[in-house]
Amino acid sequence: MSIEQRLQELGITLPAAAAPVASYLPVVVQGDLAYVSGQISFVEGELVKGRLGDDVSLEEGMAAARGCGLMILAQLKAALGSLDRVERVVKLGGFVNSTPDFTDQPKVINGASDLMLEVFGEAGKHARAAVGVPALPLGVAVEVDAVVAIKGA
Amino acid sequence: MSIEQRLQELGITLPAAAAPVASYLPVVVQGDLAYVSGQISFVEGELVKGRLGDDVSLEEGMAAARGCGLMILAQLKAALGSLDRVERVVKLGGFVNSTPDFTDQPKVINGASDLMLEVFGEAGKHARAAVGVPALPLGVAVEVDAVVAIKGA
Amino acid sequence: MSIEQRLQELGITLPAAAAPVASYLPVVVQGDLAYVSGQISFVEGELVKGRLGDDVSLEEGMAAARGCGLMILAQLKAALGSLDRVERVVKLGGFVNSTPDFTDQPKVINGASDLMLEVFGEAGKHARAAVGVPALPLGVAVEVDAVVAIKGA
Repeated sequence: MSIEQRLQELGITLPAAAAPVASYLPVVVQGDLAYVSGQISFVEGELVKGRLGDDVSLEEGMAAARGCGLMILAQLKAALGSLDRVERVVKLGGFVNSTPDFTDQPKVINGASDLMLEVFGEAGKHARAAVGVPALPLGVAVEVDAVVAIKGA
Repeated sequence: MSIEQRLQELGITLPAAAAPVASYLPVVVQGDLAYVSGQISFVEGELVKGRLGDDVSLEEGMAAARGCGLMILAQLKAALGSLDRVERVVKLGGFVNSTPDFTDQPKVINGASDLMLEVFGEAGKHARAAVGVPALPLGVAVEVDAVVAIKGA
Repeated sequence: MSIEQRLQELGITLPAAAAPVASYLPVVVQGDLAYVSGQISFVEGELVKGRLGDDVSLEEGMAAARGCGLMILAQLKAALGSLDRVERVVKLGGFVNSTPDFTDQPKVINGASDLMLEVFGEAGKHARAAVGVPALPLGVAVEVDAVVAIKGA
């Protein structure tokens, strides 16, 4: 089954690939790796703003992280032509806008990690770091970047 | 001398490799690189929780970072079979749970960096970033991730 | 035109490559990639300290990020012998010392990103993540690390 078919089966429609908010590229391919810039949390076309431990619930945070993951997929598709060129998700870096007493960053970033497993199966299993941060671009709740191995490079 | 012998000589016993606290793998090998997920601070089987500049001293922070480093080694051994497969420690990423006025993140992360030098010698010398964060998973004091080059890949 | 000539044309003099403030190397070359350690903000030989949203203005923050970028170039030149060995800037990681209500991290890190474009042209276009942090080594305003592809490796 192609990844496009898999997305359809899962009922997932990728968002339009967002333009970078500054002087960089959304994806750089170097050798057999694609480096995906930090993607901020969009859900259904709206930025998810706020802070975990304050005005963003755990469930909203997980949805925000899933939104980051969907944007990573959209950026990869735009850069590679097809998600079938993804060999493996290698690493996700998750940054969670957090109050000092919020410590469930791993659960939040699962929103992105679980998406990778749903879409790519075994090839979606990745290494990861998840940390809290006090502030993110445009005030969003979550940012996730990625390193992805590609085929036929 | 094998790395196992070196660990014995240093009096270092690796901890049991901790299971990930969420939906990811502790180590992903891609090409000749092993990406190690962010490891949180365990010392002698206990989480080291708290914040530098508040309830965690510099010495405790360095010990916590060393604990992260030991867990990185434990994860690599579990994933690779033997630490003798490590060709080089390439990069450490250090995240220190910090109050806004704590600025000794480099000294804290030396706890992990110095361990790599002790264990691997020249091959343990790595690039690094060390930053403060307001909150970490489970409330731990330090998290460190790694990129490691491996032999015979 | 060589990169040295390009720097001259731009009126850019690289700073002396700073010694690491702790137990690590400024640059590690592994395969065809150079991993550059997090470089902290120096401008004209002075650390730029403080926090965006508080005592550091957006303009000062951008200059601080450019200072990090210049130090990345200085470290690469020291490690590689010549900046002409740079094939491509692959990824920048930008950490901005931020109050909880400062959300212009992308504009700040543009100080480093724009420098890469000025110096390397197309080869300077990179992937990026930019996040806020509550504290950085020595109290600096900005820290930036890098992954750079090199020729003839």
